[in-house]
Parts: sequence; C-alpha cells; structure tokens
Amino acid sequence: MSDVRQKAKAAKGAAKRLAILTPEEKNKALKTIARALRDRKKEILEQNREDLRAGEQADLSTALMDRLKLTDERLDGMARGLEELIELPDPVGEELETIHRKNGLRIQKVRVPLGVIGMIYEARPNVTVDAAGLALKTGNAILLRGSSSAFRSNITLVQVMQEALSDTSLPPEAIGLVEDLNRDAVQEMLTLKDGIDVIIPRGGSGLIQRVVRESTVPVLETGVGNCHIYIDRSADPQIAQTIVINGKTDRPGVCNATETLLVHQDWAKEHLRRLCHALGEHQVEIRGCSRTREQFPEAALADETDWETEYLDRVLAVKVVDSAEEAMEHIDRYGTRHSEAIITENDDIARRFLQGVDAAAVYHNASTRFTDGSQFGFGAEIGISTQKLHARGPMGLKELTSYKYHVLGSGQVR
Amino acid sequence: MSDVRQKAKAAKGAAKRLAILTPEEKNKALKTIARALRDRKKEILEQNREDLRAGEQADLSTALMDRLKLTDERLDGMARGLEELIELPDPVGEELETIHRKNGLRIQKVRVPLGVIGMIYEARPNVTVDAAGLALKTGNAILLRGSSSAFRSNITLVQVMQEALSDTSLPPEAIGLVEDLNRDAVQEMLTLKDGIDVIIPRGGSGLIQRVVRESTVPVLETGVGNCHIYIDRSADPQIAQTIVINGKTDRPGVCNATETLLVHQDWAKEHLRRLCHALGEHQVEIRGCSRTREQFPEAALADETDWETEYLDRVLAVKVVDSAEEAMEHIDRYGTRHSEAIITENDDIARRFLQGVDAAAVYHNASTRFTDGSQFGFGAEIGISTQKLHARGPMGLKELTSYKYHVLGSGQVR
Repeated sequence: MSDVRQKAKAAKGAAKRLAILTPEEKNKALKTIARALRDRKKEILEQNREDLRAGEQADLSTALMDRLKLTDERLDGMARGLEELIELPDPVGEELETIHRKNGLRIQKVRVPLGVIGMIYEARPNVTVDAAGLALKTGNAILLRGSSSAFRSNITLVQVMQEALSDTSLPPEAIGLVEDLNRDAVQEMLTLKDGIDVIIPRGGSGLIQRVVRESTVPVLETGVGNCHIYIDRSADPQIAQTIVINGKTDRPGVCNATETLLVHQDWAKEHLRRLCHALGEHQVEIRGCSRTREQFPEAALADETDWETEYLDRVLAVKVVDSAEEAMEHIDRYGTRHSEAIITENDDIARRFLQGVDAAAVYHNASTRFTDGSQFGFGAEIGISTQKLHARGPMGLKELTSYKYHVLGSGQVR
Repeated sequence: MSDVRQKAKAAKGAAKRLAILTPEEKNKALKTIARALRDRKKEILEQNREDLRAGEQADLSTALMDRLKLTDERLDGMARGLEELIELPDPVGEELETIHRKNGLRIQKVRVPLGVIGMIYEARPNVTVDAAGLALKTGNAILLRGSSSAFRSNITLVQVMQEALSDTSLPPEAIGLVEDLNRDAVQEMLTLKDGIDVIIPRGGSGLIQRVVRESTVPVLETGVGNCHIYIDRSADPQIAQTIVINGKTDRPGVCNATETLLVHQDWAKEHLRRLCHALGEHQVEIRGCSRTREQFPEAALADETDWETEYLDRVLAVKVVDSAEEAMEHIDRYGTRHSEAIITENDDIARRFLQGVDAAAVYHNASTRFTDGSQFGFGAEIGISTQKLHARGPMGLKELTSYKYHVLGSGQVR
C-alpha cells in the first residue's frame, strides 16, 4: 500500500474516534501538543536548520528562506496559537435546527466534523501545526503534504505532535504527514475519494490551480486576491488616502492586500496627484492608465497585464474611471472575488457597490486588509475561500465542519 | 464562440440582474411560466411525442420511455411545482449574522445567489422546468444540458419559459439550454470556471462519476444511494417489517430506497423467516448470506457484488450480523453516505448508531424513504447531496445560495 493510501486509511480510522470526543478531550490534546512544542524546541530548531542549510544550497529566495525559518519566537507563537484554540467554542455537536413533522418524525440537523482533511501547502512549517490544531479542535483528522524544502521541519513537528497525542485519548494517526515527495503522491491524494473528504491547498496560484484541475475530492479553494479599492467622486480625501496606503503597504505580500486602485475622474482631478505622492513616500511604485499619468506623469504606463496581476509587492496599478459602474465592470472582469472596497460619502452608491460586486468581502470605507479570520472575530483561520460553495471568505472552525440529519421515528413509513 | 460559452456568458449577465430582484418580481416570473406551460401544453406534448417516437426507434427501455414521457397530468404537475415555489420564503438577502467589532466595523453576512448553475441531467424533461424554477426563485441563472433523448421536449420547454420571461422583469437568458449534443459540450461546461459557479449532475452513477472526475467547476454531487436498514436484536418485529417493506417496495427505483438489510443474529432466528415471506408477498427477491439461508433457504446466495449494488429494483440483499458494531462496519464499507436506518427499542444502541454512522441522514425506527426535500419540509428539492461540503442530504432553496460579507466602516485600517 502506498504511503498516501496507508496514512489516509489510518487517518480515516482516527477520524471515527475523533468525531465522538468531548470538547475537553480535544482541548486537553491541544494543550499537550503546545507543551511538547515548547519542551522540544531544541530538536525542532535543529531540524529546521538542516532545511535552511539545504535551502541555501538550493539557492532559495530570501522571501522563501524567511518563510521556512523557525525561531524560538515563532515556535512560541505556534504553541500560543494552539492554546488560543482551546478558548474557542467547539462547534461539533451543535444542533443547528430541529424540524418537527406532522407524522411525528423529529429531524435534527447536527454539526459534525468533515472527516479527513487533506492539506497541500508550501514552505511555511507553521502551517503544519496551525492546520493540525484547527483539524483536531473540529474533530477532523488531517493528512498533511508540505513542500520538500520544509521536509525535515515538518517530519519533526508531526512527530512531536504525534508523540504528544499518545499521552491523550486522541489517536496519533489523527495527524498524518505524507513523506513521499514525488508529484505522484499529490496526485494520489487528489483522487483518493474514499480516504479524504476535502482538500485544502495553501500556496501560490500554480499550486491552487493544479489542485482544482486534478482533484476529484472536493476542494476548498483559497487565496488568490486581486483586490481593488474604488475611490468614488464623493470620497473623503483623508479617508481615501489612509485606506489606500494601508491596503497597499501594511503587508503587501498577502492575499488581502490592495493591488489596483480605481479612481473616479472628478476625484482624480482634485486629489490623485497628492495621493500618488503619499504612496511614493511609502515606496510604492505606481503603474497608471493614461489619465492617471495626466495627473501624475511620474507613473509608468499600465497595460492589460497590470490589471490582471496580483503583485504581492509595493506596486499599485491605478486607473481613472468615468463612474462607479465602470469601476464595478473593471472589478467584475479582473477581480478574483476576494475583497473589494469602495470609498464614498454617498450611501446610495455604496449600497449599489456592496450589492453589485461579487466577492467574498465587499467594503465601504474600510481597508481590504480586514479579510482575515481573526479580524472577523473567528479566533482562528485555515484560509480565505474565494469560491462560493460551502464557505466564502475567512474560514474558521465552523467552516471545517459539515452536518448530518438524525431522523427519529416510531415506525413511520411513507 | 461556442454554444456553451455563449450561453454561459448570457447567463452570467442575467445572473447579475437576477441577484438584485425582489421576491415579488421572481414570484411573478414563476407564475407567468406556470401559466405559459398550461397554455402551450399542446405544442409541448407534440414535441415530446417526437422524442418518444425517436426513443422507440432507438429501442429505449420501457423505464426510460416512461421517464421521457410527458402527459397532460405531468405538465400540470410541473406547473403546480412552480406555483408551490411562489409560496416558499425567498432566502436571498437574508442577514445570516452581524458581527460588531471593537474598531467599529460592522460585518454583515448576507445570503446571495450562487450565480450560474450548470445542470447536467438525463432523460426526464420535468427536470428542465423544476430546476429552472428553483434557480429563478433563488436568484440564480441556469444553464441546462439534458440528454439527447429529450432534446425536442427540452428545447420546447425552454423556449416556452424564455418567452414567458420576456413578459417579466427577468431576462430570458436566465434560462439557457445547451443545444450542442456532443460530449465535448459537457466537457466545456465542466471547465468553464469563469462562466459557471456550480455544476449539479442528476442521473445515473456513470454520469455523476464523469462529472466529478472532469469538473474544475465545484460540483454538488447527488444521488447514489446504497442504503441499509439494520434490525437490532431488540427491534419490534412489526415495526421492522413495516419499515423494511416500505424502504424496499414503496418506490424501488429511487436513491433513498433500501438496498441491503442487516439483521442481528438473535432477531434473525426468531423473525427473519417471517419477514422474508412478507417481502416475497411484495414480489421482493432475496439474496442472502449463508446465515440468512439457514432461516430462509429459498434465498439466492449473495456475494460481494450484492453488498455493493444499488439494485433500484425489487431485490434485497440480506446479511445476518453478530452485533450492531458489525452492522456499522458493513455500512461504513459499502454505504454511499446517503441514508441508513436502525430499528431498535434500545436507545443506547440507537444513539451509538446515529452518532457513529457517517451518512447524510441516519434514521431510528423510520424508513430510509424519508430522505427527500418535501418530506423534510423544504418544500422543494434540487437533489440529494451525498458529499459533505456545502450541503448534505436533501437540497432545497437555501442550498442553492451562498453568502458574502458586507463590511461597513468609517475609515478603519489595520
């Protein structure tokens, strides 16, 4: 039996036991894992250093090396993340609805775990622990497939977690790591319909597109955000400037960062030049349409590619538009249904924008950067869904559950 | 532009308008369509007769011919189905939750349509009208791909519906029919991620498996039900017999019919023979394990295939088991996560079964035949989901919606 199939089978068995655990049992396991991560820091960091050494030899980019790196503080953060999960309410077992039928049937809609979550992700070893914690809290088993660059870190982290579980009522097989680094192993996960209930990819758009294309297991698509801010004619200049600078520069490398600015022509005439200068002071490079360049000739000329690009960098595409409608059409064409914002003092136009723009989160007078589980008050997040089925936007604990119906009768037939 | 791409594009445009309609506008459209179906019965039945003639020549089975056939009464039923939708509450626009954050942000979770639903289905032309009605009621556009055997009926039904819509505020493009009968047209639908938001297949397991395998558009998987009834040691013989006969014979050809009976050995010794006789009186053929044949030698010997088969016919597989645990393991191995029932007077064992069996609907002392939108009180149904993401079990109006977040601020940044 292949590595994937064997571990999925073990995870499936574990999932059955996880599904009926009490909140206390699951919380105790999270606590035990958090303690083990702190106790065994030294060996984890040692193995991580091996990965870093290999990464250096393989000439990984500085950004990748940074994401790969574990430190004392980062490990503490991971342990703290698990402890924070303990405080959150357990969604499993919640009775979502009870239907009483005239024939006497009582139909209870009950929240249950998904079963086995397959997680395919890149570089960051902290995902290994975060995702395992979220899975256990929600009564799910998890099968992890990290990237080869974090191989040693992931093996050690999973081993530490599994050994911690052996002191609890949770089966260690609840957390599995696919150690086969061949591309075929991913392919096997994606088609293992009787072993994995849902696949969550986390990483670049290449990874996500491959998973969506090849998976017969249902996928929770996450992540790609080509987010826009539209500054309406009536926008307050100070609010607009604060939000645009925050959207672009607070953390340019994440999916809820702003990538394109759309500006109403009237507002542009009065305020765009000042805004571009302010962005320049934050080291933001502007790529503008020809009308943007009328106001700010220093901007490079934007082309089609710029409207399509998620820069994930200190670059902002800027386009002057005639109306809110033109802005909405642009968003409809180039947006990725992630996060879109309007800055306006006109509530009618704001309402039209909120209703008309098809995205997980649509903002009025706030930064796109808020699309995030903890900012939404979910306490934890496994990713941000850009699809419409099952979950949309930040996915917290509830989004890692399904439901089933208990139908209670006394001999009823049709 | 291909037929599929062109109609999906038109549907996408229509979906934008549908999303912001009032419940009254949508209900008026449903009423207008229902009236048109009644007014234009003659031409619909004429075209349906053409399909039936072609079906005869192609030597379609009696069952298929029956499913293909429209009559005065069936058309009335379809029109009535639309009128019943009018009475149901409109789920779109419902505020599911409001989150107030400390920074003053107000986050509203609002129910919205899915967008464009792609429906791929076999034979029955009533699905054409039922699915279009459900889509319109929930503010979705729909792109239909029926089978070639119902080609003329479907074209006429869609034409009647579209012409009815042209008298309303709804765009006729809200209902599209793919007229290209090549297999490639289905392939195109399954990969049209920017044109179709969800694919719902309805038909045999071959169709459903193909859709799941090839689709990059998210799929709502429906339908295959290898459903079990487990008769526990303490089951009331009368209740057991009534439920088993109902589960198997009420309508053997549908997905919630019972296919395998599992019987505790103690109960089997006392009552199985009588139950098998009663089933025989209902023209049910028994295929039993060796222990079943000890009680009822008239039964054919069941093999592995029988445990796996969704007969959809008056055939029942019967297996004697040692315990509830063995029954649950059998269900876990051969079940399709659709509907599973236990008959017992022992509440502890019932609870263990309800919790432990992984299926959309798990029954205690009631027939599996109740897994159905109208039996659950949903008023309407687009299919029965056997997956865990998004929707599980009968899918009514709410299951044809998604949600989005409106985030209302006054200049907030991170």
